[in-house]
Amino acid sequence: MTLEAIRYRAGSLQILNQLLLPHQTAYEEVRSVQDAYEAIKSMKVRGAPAIAIVGCLSLAVELRAGAGGDDPVTFIRESLCHLTSARPTAVNMGRAARELMEFAENESMEKNSEQLRESVIAWIEDMLERDVNDNRKIGNYGAQHILSGVPRDSVTILTHCNTGSLATAGYGTALGVVRSLHALGRLKRVYCTETRPYNQGSRLTAYEAVAEGIPATLITDSMAALTMREMDITAVVVGADRVVANGDTANKVGTYQLAIAAKHHGIPFYVAAPSTSCDLSLESGRDIIIEVRPPEELTSINGVPIAAPGIEVWNPAFDVTPHQLITGGIITELGVFLPSELQAALTGRLTAL
Amino acid sequence: MTLEAIRYRAGSLQILNQLLLPHQTAYEEVRSVQDAYEAIKSMKVRGAPAIAIVGCLSLAVELRAGAGGDDPVTFIRESLCHLTSARPTAVNMGRAARELMEFAENESMEKNSEQLRESVIAWIEDMLERDVNDNRKIGNYGAQHILSGVPRDSVTILTHCNTGSLATAGYGTALGVVRSLHALGRLKRVYCTETRPYNQGSRLTAYEAVAEGIPATLITDSMAALTMREMDITAVVVGADRVVANGDTANKVGTYQLAIAAKHHGIPFYVAAPSTSCDLSLESGRDIIIEVRPPEELTSINGVPIAAPGIEVWNPAFDVTPHQLITGGIITELGVFLPSELQAALTGRLTAL
Repeated sequence: MTLEAIRYRAGSLQILNQLLLPHQTAYEEVRSVQDAYEAIKSMKVRGAPAIAIVGCLSLAVELRAGAGGDDPVTFIRESLCHLTSARPTAVNMGRAARELMEFAENESMEKNSEQLRESVIAWIEDMLERDVNDNRKIGNYGAQHILSGVPRDSVTILTHCNTGSLATAGYGTALGVVRSLHALGRLKRVYCTETRPYNQGSRLTAYEAVAEGIPATLITDSMAALTMREMDITAVVVGADRVVANGDTANKVGTYQLAIAAKHHGIPFYVAAPSTSCDLSLESGRDIIIEVRPPEELTSINGVPIAAPGIEVWNPAFDVTPHQLITGGIITELGVFLPSELQAALTGRLTAL
Repeated sequence: MTLEAIRYRAGSLQILNQLLLPHQTAYEEVRSVQDAYEAIKSMKVRGAPAIAIVGCLSLAVELRAGAGGDDPVTFIRESLCHLTSARPTAVNMGRAARELMEFAENESMEKNSEQLRESVIAWIEDMLERDVNDNRKIGNYGAQHILSGVPRDSVTILTHCNTGSLATAGYGTALGVVRSLHALGRLKRVYCTETRPYNQGSRLTAYEAVAEGIPATLITDSMAALTMREMDITAVVVGADRVVANGDTANKVGTYQLAIAAKHHGIPFYVAAPSTSCDLSLESGRDIIIEVRPPEELTSINGVPIAAPGIEVWNPAFDVTPHQLITGGIITELGVFLPSELQAALTGRLTAL
């Protein structure tokens, strides 16, 4: 079964506390918007899609208990403002807040407080379901595309960072493709990079793989090229922070290096991302600004210093992979597209391969 | 000034305790062969050339104090046996022991005990000096070769692992090239990879750079390709565990990936190694067996677990870079050679470029 990072039943929300992973598996009750705010701020939940889902679900929990009284719209607005301020750079929460607020205001013109609460709850529950369904579609499209090019019974995948249940509403993007291959009985093994400096691979992807019995092997980031040469890798599949109009893709640092190594070995390189991660307003990856994070992420681990004191550090959080290196395709919930087809596909001028 | 990992004056030997680096700089007295054995076994000193030097110097210290009495040859033989057993896989100690033993046996035919001690001490002191001098030649040849291809005032180098004073008798190989560029006032900056999983870059290379005021920036292994694209890297220079006849080079894992990325960016890729690291008995890198090390190097750091429990690990210690990717050349104490020229150069059929 699939690891559940977010457990939701009508009126009840629990999250897997990611601060305790991978050493302890503990679910925590989220009873209110304030609980969610604190869980997001302290990074008990992380990953832009997951943050938005947990934030909105906490609102649904309160609304079901009657929060907002005679003026639910004001309660919803204030709650969304508060939630958005927990991690202001996580774009998905901001986008969800805008869409949900617009929906709530429209509904409020025709409905009484009780009806409004019901329809907002339904909207939020639908958002959770839609997100997981989109990821399942990404998983299935990706798995079929990879298998279609391979005469073998089973395939070996190399992935980077964490793009699984722990970063999304569930199932995952690149790791969703791995899950689908495993569910089909066609996954021989997945190699996951540890993903320095924040170790999302060794902490989170490895955790998901162990939890679900997916055959997985951890390597350092520096071993990826050797793994491609020695381990008969069928495809490299990664997620995306943002895909722009020409297919250039910003993702966790190290992705660019993997794409170069994949090209050198003639291995197809795939990006898996929902269409909501595609930003057609930017022409090319040159327009993406690289976020540089604090040196401490490299020089210490769990607060313990691991590098020579006084050394300078460069710590870019992500890099941009040019579309020419995305040789396998971009896997979305609408299908798998070449970078050159992406814009037409997302604007409805092209259907899935 | 150059960081001294090994301090030797006639009759006195001190080593920098590498177990305490980078957080504490402490020299320890090595008064006997047994002291050296324990320092090597516990990894207070590491790096195959450094192990051989420290082992032999400890013998010189004892001989100068009159050890061996009337039968120094027996004392030398037993001491070398003991030292070689401390880290049996470090080839340089074994090679030095064989050469020194042969020398001592020849000398013993003509000399009395006192004269024999003197000539063995001289042989050992010469070994230290020769090793450092070879490294300085490597540094100078490499620096000149890199600068000869560059119209700019200063150059930016990317290196991997630790190949400096802490791994050799002094000065270093690839890091010796960096030192020479710095001494010439032509080094803008060196980028050093942290070199997972054993972090020789962040612990040792960073330490050497900070100690000597060499402008240096630490990056994760996954950032190397991005650094090549963004930071105007002039050349990539790495060391070697073994260079075989066709120029294929075994070195710390991650070297192969760097070579692919350098090729992609059109950046010259150099290997720096003394001729004693060249093994012409092997035809190609296919003959080199990849050593696989324990999973714990990836799953914990300083004894603290950092990965999901139960995850499988692949931990090859080095990889082989095919000669086609060594586009800059192989830097030895005899000069800089293309991989295709190496065999002729080392067998005296070709002189330095």
